[in-house]
Amino acid sequence: MANQGWCLLRRPTGYFQDGDIALRELPMPQPEAGQLRIRTVYLSIDPAYRVWANDVVLYLPALQIGETLRGSIIGVVEESYHPDFVPGDIVTGVLRIQKYLLSDGTDIMKVPPTLPLRSYFALYGHIGTTAYFGLEIVHPKAGETLVVSSAAGGVGSLAGQMAKIYGCHVVGIAGTDDRCHWIVDELGFDAAINYRTQNVDQGLRETCPDGIDVYFDNVGGAILDGVCCQLNIGARIALCGMLTDYNSDRPAGVYNLFELILKRASAYGFLVTDYLPRYLEAFAQIKAWETANKIRYRLTVLDGIEHLPQALEGIFTSRYLGKVVIQVAPEP
Amino acid sequence: MANQGWCLLRRPTGYFQDGDIALRELPMPQPEAGQLRIRTVYLSIDPAYRVWANDVVLYLPALQIGETLRGSIIGVVEESYHPDFVPGDIVTGVLRIQKYLLSDGTDIMKVPPTLPLRSYFALYGHIGTTAYFGLEIVHPKAGETLVVSSAAGGVGSLAGQMAKIYGCHVVGIAGTDDRCHWIVDELGFDAAINYRTQNVDQGLRETCPDGIDVYFDNVGGAILDGVCCQLNIGARIALCGMLTDYNSDRPAGVYNLFELILKRASAYGFLVTDYLPRYLEAFAQIKAWETANKIRYRLTVLDGIEHLPQALEGIFTSRYLGKVVIQVAPEP
Repeated sequence: MANQGWCLLRRPTGYFQDGDIALRELPMPQPEAGQLRIRTVYLSIDPAYRVWANDVVLYLPALQIGETLRGSIIGVVEESYHPDFVPGDIVTGVLRIQKYLLSDGTDIMKVPPTLPLRSYFALYGHIGTTAYFGLEIVHPKAGETLVVSSAAGGVGSLAGQMAKIYGCHVVGIAGTDDRCHWIVDELGFDAAINYRTQNVDQGLRETCPDGIDVYFDNVGGAILDGVCCQLNIGARIALCGMLTDYNSDRPAGVYNLFELILKRASAYGFLVTDYLPRYLEAFAQIKAWETANKIRYRLTVLDGIEHLPQALEGIFTSRYLGKVVIQVAPEP
Repeated sequence: MANQGWCLLRRPTGYFQDGDIALRELPMPQPEAGQLRIRTVYLSIDPAYRVWANDVVLYLPALQIGETLRGSIIGVVEESYHPDFVPGDIVTGVLRIQKYLLSDGTDIMKVPPTLPLRSYFALYGHIGTTAYFGLEIVHPKAGETLVVSSAAGGVGSLAGQMAKIYGCHVVGIAGTDDRCHWIVDELGFDAAINYRTQNVDQGLRETCPDGIDVYFDNVGGAILDGVCCQLNIGARIALCGMLTDYNSDRPAGVYNLFELILKRASAYGFLVTDYLPRYLEAFAQIKAWETANKIRYRLTVLDGIEHLPQALEGIFTSRYLGKVVIQVAPEP
């Protein structure tokens, strides 16, 4: 039993490459009064990790060279000198990408025992809540047309299914034919557009004949630009992520914002962490939908913390359907 | 007495130039049953006229070559066979840039007799309402910092003063030192930035030490991009106009929209015409503010419809302070 974690060696340019990060031996955390030790069980793989490696202050302080990467984990409390936690508790939070973690309890929350560990990041966690609260902000109504980008990813695949539950005409934009088939044939999207092989503007005209009322944007850039030109009056855009830009030095320009004026449209940036006090509400709703077989997911589980680099590259290159997690240790 | 109007001869590139538009003799409108004739008294000079000359469907159908340009006018009913209007009524609407106009009553509204004709477009009309309702959308609160661009223009100068009334720290961005002095020394803005001679990003850092909570955007482009990087959490942007782009073939790119996510900020496109049913509410509030000497304006009145080209060029080149109108005929 030894601790390991992924350390930042230098600022990446483009995708993480050999030499940007390294798996290092770390001291085993020894909790003191008011602290606890967590054994990481699953690590969520998220595009944000790439952004967090840049030298900019985001909603979190910039990572320093030599620091362990941040990641969303779910784990089990092994040893606790904190009044609110006992060994065996399942906890989650944005912590570090390492096998064993020290916490003072302020950066974690308990996972309700009714929720599964394995699919926690596929349906719940920050993924399901991002889809749920992102949609709440732009309140899609029955009969409206909703477009979602990165539609076969963890968040996009849930957001599209929830919009179907709300009664929308749902079109997903994804990067491979497999992904397009999955979201239409298995998840029930009304249509899909492969942005790598199709003209997206043309595809949107064909699949959104009544225009676009809501856009759940995970990518930014050229696709956002194209969607702007097909918005209906009063359209709403949830700005959830800008995958297009995460691996580049200079973000892609957006040129068609004048369309927001013409269409009296609005765009809302959001971070799901602001909704932490309401996570349980979202969890309950998602669980009800899953139980009623109204929401499905696809989960890729990679075995071992050493697979982080491939996992990260894979989510930027459309390699996986749905959600990707790394299993760092067996479930308790 | 003869009718004249400004006709579109060809699509402009850049500013309107000789040969793009021409003042032409037009038949004198002869109203029939249900119609009325209006004598134009004042013509508002607005940046939107340039956009309306493009070959695109906006919130109005695209102007055709040979058609008379559209413009916001205030005028007097000369002859009426419409049950709701009598000669002498003062009416306003987005009609055509010509001396005499025909209307069926659906495209005009009566101006309350308590309002002045001469300063109607400086304080009321679509100008005062744009400032008033644009601010309503982004609800600036006392103590917040509000930035407004094109701050010495008709809308910007009012929006900034209203934000002062609401208790904000107000910074204006304008294009000449004269304009900057005017908004600070006479209108009471807290600070001004000359975007032609100063570094706007640096100016914003200095004049908005607590960050930007609200941005009233009349220009889009690079200034919008710079503002995005200094937004506070929960900031709101009113997208009122994009002057930067109106005279160019390709709009300026906006690169920093990721900041909207990081700051959980929102951007709202709007058109004041959607607020027509509430204009009287805004007029009453603005009149009360003006009476209390809380709102001031500067008005340039050009004499004669033939001055349209200079007037339009002037508003794009920071030639005039405040609002510009053309007096087409004497007041009744």
